[in-house]
Amino acid sequence: MERVYNFSAGPSMLPLPVLEKAQKELVCYGDTGMSVMEMSHRSKAFEDIIESAESLLRELMGIPDNYEVMFLQGGASTQFAMIPLNLFTKNKKADLVKTGQWAKKALEEASKYGTVNVVASSEDKIYTYIPKLDKSKFSPDADYFYITVNNTIYGTRYKQTELPDTGNIPLVGDISSNIMSEVMDVSKYGVLFAGAQKNVGPAGVTIAIVRDDLIGNAMDICPTMLDYKIHSKNKSLYNTPPCFSIYVSKLVFEWIKENGGVKGIQQMNEEKAAVLYDFLDESKMFRGTVVKEDRSLMNIPFVTDNDELNAKFIKEASAKGFVNLKGHRTVGGMRASIYNAMPIEGVKALVDFMKAFETEN
Amino acid sequence: MERVYNFSAGPSMLPLPVLEKAQKELVCYGDTGMSVMEMSHRSKAFEDIIESAESLLRELMGIPDNYEVMFLQGGASTQFAMIPLNLFTKNKKADLVKTGQWAKKALEEASKYGTVNVVASSEDKIYTYIPKLDKSKFSPDADYFYITVNNTIYGTRYKQTELPDTGNIPLVGDISSNIMSEVMDVSKYGVLFAGAQKNVGPAGVTIAIVRDDLIGNAMDICPTMLDYKIHSKNKSLYNTPPCFSIYVSKLVFEWIKENGGVKGIQQMNEEKAAVLYDFLDESKMFRGTVVKEDRSLMNIPFVTDNDELNAKFIKEASAKGFVNLKGHRTVGGMRASIYNAMPIEGVKALVDFMKAFETEN
Repeated sequence: MERVYNFSAGPSMLPLPVLEKAQKELVCYGDTGMSVMEMSHRSKAFEDIIESAESLLRELMGIPDNYEVMFLQGGASTQFAMIPLNLFTKNKKADLVKTGQWAKKALEEASKYGTVNVVASSEDKIYTYIPKLDKSKFSPDADYFYITVNNTIYGTRYKQTELPDTGNIPLVGDISSNIMSEVMDVSKYGVLFAGAQKNVGPAGVTIAIVRDDLIGNAMDICPTMLDYKIHSKNKSLYNTPPCFSIYVSKLVFEWIKENGGVKGIQQMNEEKAAVLYDFLDESKMFRGTVVKEDRSLMNIPFVTDNDELNAKFIKEASAKGFVNLKGHRTVGGMRASIYNAMPIEGVKALVDFMKAFETEN
Repeated sequence: MERVYNFSAGPSMLPLPVLEKAQKELVCYGDTGMSVMEMSHRSKAFEDIIESAESLLRELMGIPDNYEVMFLQGGASTQFAMIPLNLFTKNKKADLVKTGQWAKKALEEASKYGTVNVVASSEDKIYTYIPKLDKSKFSPDADYFYITVNNTIYGTRYKQTELPDTGNIPLVGDISSNIMSEVMDVSKYGVLFAGAQKNVGPAGVTIAIVRDDLIGNAMDICPTMLDYKIHSKNKSLYNTPPCFSIYVSKLVFEWIKENGGVKGIQQMNEEKAAVLYDFLDESKMFRGTVVKEDRSLMNIPFVTDNDELNAKFIKEASAKGFVNLKGHRTVGGMRASIYNAMPIEGVKALVDFMKAFETEN
């Protein structure tokens, strides 16, 4: 079976060299005589893997020393609880910008434990833009300020140069769908987190990057396993971590490093996105759904004016090996997720197919 | 590199045919053109995998229809919080038998959310036995009664024929280290749970089997991701599950089925354990640490009378390819974990080596 171009929003494509290396090492890793899946998490061999994963991540993202890096479980959905449970230390208040379904889930979860002030929302136009902020609406006594940096479903994105200016209030960013896809200044955030299954590795590991002064004051009701302190103090080895997912993530980090680091990857991502956006801007059949200045580099929703045509396109594309192009049910149409591992050839081939489809229909 | 005999307490050995199949399918699964690690959890291909995993597990363990099966994240340590958060519905009281470090952690976590009555403990003799119970100490108004069915660190085990008689109070059992190693009557329990990394699959997936009347009354402060209701209602697909770990678990379930089901596996485990226990009972150098009637089939701690000799044994065994035999720091000496995937040849070879070591020293 030939490999397809997989435009899934997540879990999604992994770099082929990573898969091939994982395959080669699957039964016996190095000179250990066992699979990574069989290794004690307290063994020297696994400690080397997790330490190397952390140090590569720190290097690639330029994570300052006063931030802890944790490899956790439970996905971004668990972070929606961990953030208030750990950061509601003073007034149990948070500010939040509502830019989509994931921000809404973070809002609902935090509201269990305190008060969340919605500073702005783009719900009025099905989240097709990043709303401008009125600083007078910020809470001066918030424990944190929450944004979804890249919105997987709607295809919008905060530019790193246009983050909310929250002063001393820690900015919390969900970067599940754009971690390591573009250069970020970690020091502008208090907390960054990402489920692995888009740009990092297999589902089952979640990365949390937390400034150290925000750790150690969890609410009394916080379950031990949801306390950042437990995991940072134990270097993500308080209990058995998702070892194999961390190992594959390490291989992905090595691949990023070999490809020019995050800076090199960002350049490729900008080229890839331009190929598709340029076509969408000139096409008479297809159009992007997001306002130009807020377009994501990772998730590109697009539509035709006709639901039947959308369905026909998705079906024919799939038959040609361009799979998982169906848009999220709340947006309709199509969505191409072009994460780090999607090669530019895949995007070009998709655009060629779209051109041919447009001519024929 | 030749494969070793890995006596690790967890993560631990997986069946070689499982690893070889996972290796073969790693880059391209079936006719999907992608790795299982790259599959959308909402795809038909992955739905087939998780449904097949659940249905095999139900068949192999004989799980009645009024029990929900969930594939979760966070390990047994997260269950220590989920159990009280979901089961403290009436009096916020639990009974618990303290048979080791994991029971102690479950006790500490549940004490955050209610009152835990320690019905009995074997701490007085470093947890080397399962304590007899005095029914007059049971709380008639407890929301649940908690036991660790197999104690990984200390090598003790509840016989399935000698479970506490808790009447209408739901019995909660941690079966992390003996799930599917012996036949269990699931209907005797309210909740059973197990981290995968010993008898099921790679670390990162946790199985919870919960009677349906115990679902749906979580405490208000329960994080969404820690609510059994969310996961059961969504068939473990509320958010992205640890897909690859679930897939490997499915392969392990298939392997168990091919090897006579849990009944066939139990027979092999009893044979394996007998080989080692029989030797320990006749050896003049080595002895088991657990009282005979409470011996685990899975985790077999043993010692010599001399710390230096223990260290020498562990070192020489490792050089011969019998690895991870060092006992837990709280017990000392050695521990051989002989989970389902350890072949009888591994145990026999270990005993041969022990005999030779005894003669030479």
